[in-house]
Amino acid sequence: MSPATPNPARVPYHAATAAFASGKDSPRDFLERCLGQVSALEPRVGAFVALNIEGARAAADRATARWRAGRPLSPIDGMPVGIKDIIETEDMPTEQGSPLFTGYRTGRDGASVAALREAGAVVLGKTVTTEFAASEPRGTRNPWDLDRTPGGSSSGSAAAVACGMLPVGLGTQVVGSILRPSSFCGVYGFKPSVGGVNRGGSYDGLSQSCHGALAASLADAWLTVRAITARVGGDPGYPGLSGPRDLPAARKPARLALLQTAGWREAEPAAKAALEGAAAKLKAAGVELLTRHDNAPVAGAEEAIADAMGLTRAINDWEGRWPLNAYRGRPGLSQVMIDRLANAESMSLEDYQRRIAERARIRGVFAGLKAVCDGAIALSATGPAPVGLHSTGNPIFVAPGSLLGVPTLSLPLFAVGELPLGLQVLGFEQADASVVGLARWIDEALAQT
Amino acid sequence: MSPATPNPARVPYHAATAAFASGKDSPRDFLERCLGQVSALEPRVGAFVALNIEGARAAADRATARWRAGRPLSPIDGMPVGIKDIIETEDMPTEQGSPLFTGYRTGRDGASVAALREAGAVVLGKTVTTEFAASEPRGTRNPWDLDRTPGGSSSGSAAAVACGMLPVGLGTQVVGSILRPSSFCGVYGFKPSVGGVNRGGSYDGLSQSCHGALAASLADAWLTVRAITARVGGDPGYPGLSGPRDLPAARKPARLALLQTAGWREAEPAAKAALEGAAAKLKAAGVELLTRHDNAPVAGAEEAIADAMGLTRAINDWEGRWPLNAYRGRPGLSQVMIDRLANAESMSLEDYQRRIAERARIRGVFAGLKAVCDGAIALSATGPAPVGLHSTGNPIFVAPGSLLGVPTLSLPLFAVGELPLGLQVLGFEQADASVVGLARWIDEALAQT
Repeated sequence: MSPATPNPARVPYHAATAAFASGKDSPRDFLERCLGQVSALEPRVGAFVALNIEGARAAADRATARWRAGRPLSPIDGMPVGIKDIIETEDMPTEQGSPLFTGYRTGRDGASVAALREAGAVVLGKTVTTEFAASEPRGTRNPWDLDRTPGGSSSGSAAAVACGMLPVGLGTQVVGSILRPSSFCGVYGFKPSVGGVNRGGSYDGLSQSCHGALAASLADAWLTVRAITARVGGDPGYPGLSGPRDLPAARKPARLALLQTAGWREAEPAAKAALEGAAAKLKAAGVELLTRHDNAPVAGAEEAIADAMGLTRAINDWEGRWPLNAYRGRPGLSQVMIDRLANAESMSLEDYQRRIAERARIRGVFAGLKAVCDGAIALSATGPAPVGLHSTGNPIFVAPGSLLGVPTLSLPLFAVGELPLGLQVLGFEQADASVVGLARWIDEALAQT
Repeated sequence: MSPATPNPARVPYHAATAAFASGKDSPRDFLERCLGQVSALEPRVGAFVALNIEGARAAADRATARWRAGRPLSPIDGMPVGIKDIIETEDMPTEQGSPLFTGYRTGRDGASVAALREAGAVVLGKTVTTEFAASEPRGTRNPWDLDRTPGGSSSGSAAAVACGMLPVGLGTQVVGSILRPSSFCGVYGFKPSVGGVNRGGSYDGLSQSCHGALAASLADAWLTVRAITARVGGDPGYPGLSGPRDLPAARKPARLALLQTAGWREAEPAAKAALEGAAAKLKAAGVELLTRHDNAPVAGAEEAIADAMGLTRAINDWEGRWPLNAYRGRPGLSQVMIDRLANAESMSLEDYQRRIAERARIRGVFAGLKAVCDGAIALSATGPAPVGLHSTGNPIFVAPGSLLGVPTLSLPLFAVGELPLGLQVLGFEQADASVVGLARWIDEALAQT
C-alpha cells in the first residue's frame, strides 16, 4: 500500500502562534488546516475513535478572540489536541480500545483533559489506543507506509501528529507506548518522570505508567505537559513535573552515556549505524560519550537494566490483575489479556513485592550515573516500523526508561530508507526540565549537521 | 430522639464460622439475621444508598454450600459486607454522596470489591458516604443516639456495623474517615498503611487516602483487608499489606508512646479521663508509657504532627483540584467543595511540592520512634459523637495517622455515659500485621480489666 501522503508533515503549533495577534493566522485557521488533513487522510490512517468538530471549532473561535485581544490563557491556547482514548472526556466516550467499553461515557474530563481545556487547548477528538493501552492493535496505520504499524499503544496520537491532523496528542507509556510510536511515526515523544503528570480519570493505573505528549515539535511537547501540571500537578503524592512554562533553554552536555541496552542484539544494522553516526557528530561537537566498554558506572547501569522487559512485564501483570479479574468471562477480552490475567494469578503478593524491590534497586543504580554524566542516549527502536498491523512492534529500547521512571524523549532525527527512526534521550528522575534542555541541544546540533 | 435500639450490638462474622461446617449455622442464616436488623433499623438509621438483597442471598447460599463441603474460599467466605459508595460495584450505582452522580453506573467492581467477591464475601449493599468522601453529611444517624452524627466520611459502614446490619463495611480515610466514625459508633476501625490496599475503581484518589475496614471484631477487620490484598495487592507501586492470613497473634508491647496530639486541648474531660484510665491499666500490666514530658523522641514526634490537620487540608485541597475543576459550575456541588476548589486555585504546584516535602520530613521524624517504642496510643476522638447531623465531628485526633501514612486502629474500649469512644493505636508504616498484633493484645488486656 502506498503512504498516506507522499511526505507526511508535522504541523507545529507554538511556532504558529507568533502570527495570531496580528490576525495573519489564528487558532481557527490552524484548526481548519488540521481538519483538512483529517478529511483527506483519516479514512486511510484511522487515527481517531471519536471527533468533536463542532466543539473544537467553537473552542478555536474563543481562542482566536483571546489571541487577538492579547490575552491568551497559556502558550497553548487554541492548540488542537487529541486525547488517547484511555483518558476520560466529558464530551466523548472513553472506550479504552476494548469492546467491553463501546460507547462508555463518564460525563467528565480526566485531569489532563480538564487542565488542557483550562489552558485553552482545543480537544478535537479521541485517538486510537490498543486494548487497555497494552498490545492488542486497533487498526491504525502508519502514515509513512499504510502497510506498517504506527506502533502502540498511543497509536492514534502518533499517526495523527505525523501527518498534520494534530500538532499534539496525549499518550501514556508503561513499557513503550509513547516513545515507540513516536519513533515509528517520526514525531517528538516525551514521557515524563514517573508520577509527573496527574493521571486522574485515566485507565492507565499501573505503577510505571505516565502521561506524556506526542508532538510536532519539542516545544509543543513541553508546553503541553507543563500547561497540564501547572493546573493539576502530577499524580497525588508526587512532586509533579515543574520548571519553566516555556521550552527550557538548550543545554549542551559535557558527557553522555551511550546506552546499548538489551535492544542492541535485536537492532537492525541501519539503526545501529544511525546511532553511531549521531555519536560521531556529538563527539565532533565536543561531547564526551561514555559506554559500557570504557566506564564502570555505565557498565553497571547497562547490567542493571538488562532485563527491563521481563521485570516490567511481571510488575505489569500483577498490577493488571484488577481490573482484568473484574472482566473475567466477558466476551470481548483479547486472548492476550486472558493470558495476562492467568499469569497474574500464578503470582503472589510476595512475588510482586520482590519485583518492586528489585526495581527500586535498579533505579538506585541508574541514579548513580548522575555523578558521571548529564544524561544518556540510545536508539528508540530496533529499526523503523515493521510491516503488518497485527503487532505494534518491539519496545525493547524504551522499556528501560519506563522501568527506571526517568524522563525520556524520542527525537525524530534518523531515517532508514524512507522511514523515520528516533533517537532516545534519557534523563534522571524528577529532573524533566533538565533533560528537555539536553534534548533541545541535541536536536538542534544533530539537525544542523 | 431515642436510640435505634436500646443496646446496639455488633455481630462478628469470624466467630460465627465455627458452626458453619456442621450446619448449626450458615452464611445464609447469618445474612438473614443481618437482613432482620436492616428491616428493623434502616428506616431510622439510613446507612445504605443501595441494597442488592437478591444477589446477596444467592451469594450466601453458594457460600453455605462451600462451608458445608469443607471448602470455603477464604476465612471470610459468605461474610456480608457493605461497600462505601465511593467504590465501584458492578451491580449497584456508585453515587459518591453527590447529586452529580445519581444513578451513576460503571458496570464493574473496584479492586477491593472484586477481591472480596473472589474471597466469597457477600456484597449486601452500598453504604452512605459524605459528598466525595469529604465532609458534607448525607443523613445517616448514629444507632446509639439518632440525634447524633455517626461520623464520616464512612458514615453508613460505621452505622451499619454498630447495630448488626453488617459485620464489616469498607471505608476510606484521608483525614479521619475510618477511625472517627468507628469511635463514634463503637466499632473496630482499621486504616492500613498508605498504599496498603488497592484503590483501583475507587474515587478516593488523594495521596493520603487508604481503604480499610469498619468491623464488628478485630478479626473481621484484619481478615477482610488481608483477603483483599492477597488477591489484588496494594496501590500499584506499593508493597501492599501482607502478613498472616489469620489474625496476627497478640503481641504485648514493652513500651508505647502515649500521644496527646493537638487534639488534647480540644478533648472533653471524660475522654481524657478514659485515656488516663487505660494508661494506668497498661502500666499496671507492665507496659512502659513514654510521653512528650519524659521522652525526647516522643516530644519531637508530637511537635512534628502538631499541625497535621492544616498540612493535610492543604495537601488534600491541591490534590482535589481535579476532579472539582471538571465539575465547576454544575448544580449540586456543595459550598464546601466550591470553597475547596477556590482554595486549591489559590495554590501553586510549588506550594504543593513544599507541603509534601514537609510531610516526608514529618514521616521521617515519626519513624524515628521505632527505636524507642513498639507503637503509640491516643484518643480516637475528642469525645463521643456530637449532637447534630450537620457535621461529622472533629477528626483532630486521627488526622496525624493519615498524614503519617501509618497503620492505625480504633478499638471500641471506652464509654462516656451511654456513648462509645475509641482508643487509637498507631503503628509504623508498612508494618500493619505488627500493629494489629499490638492492638489485639491491648484490646484483650483492657477489655478484661
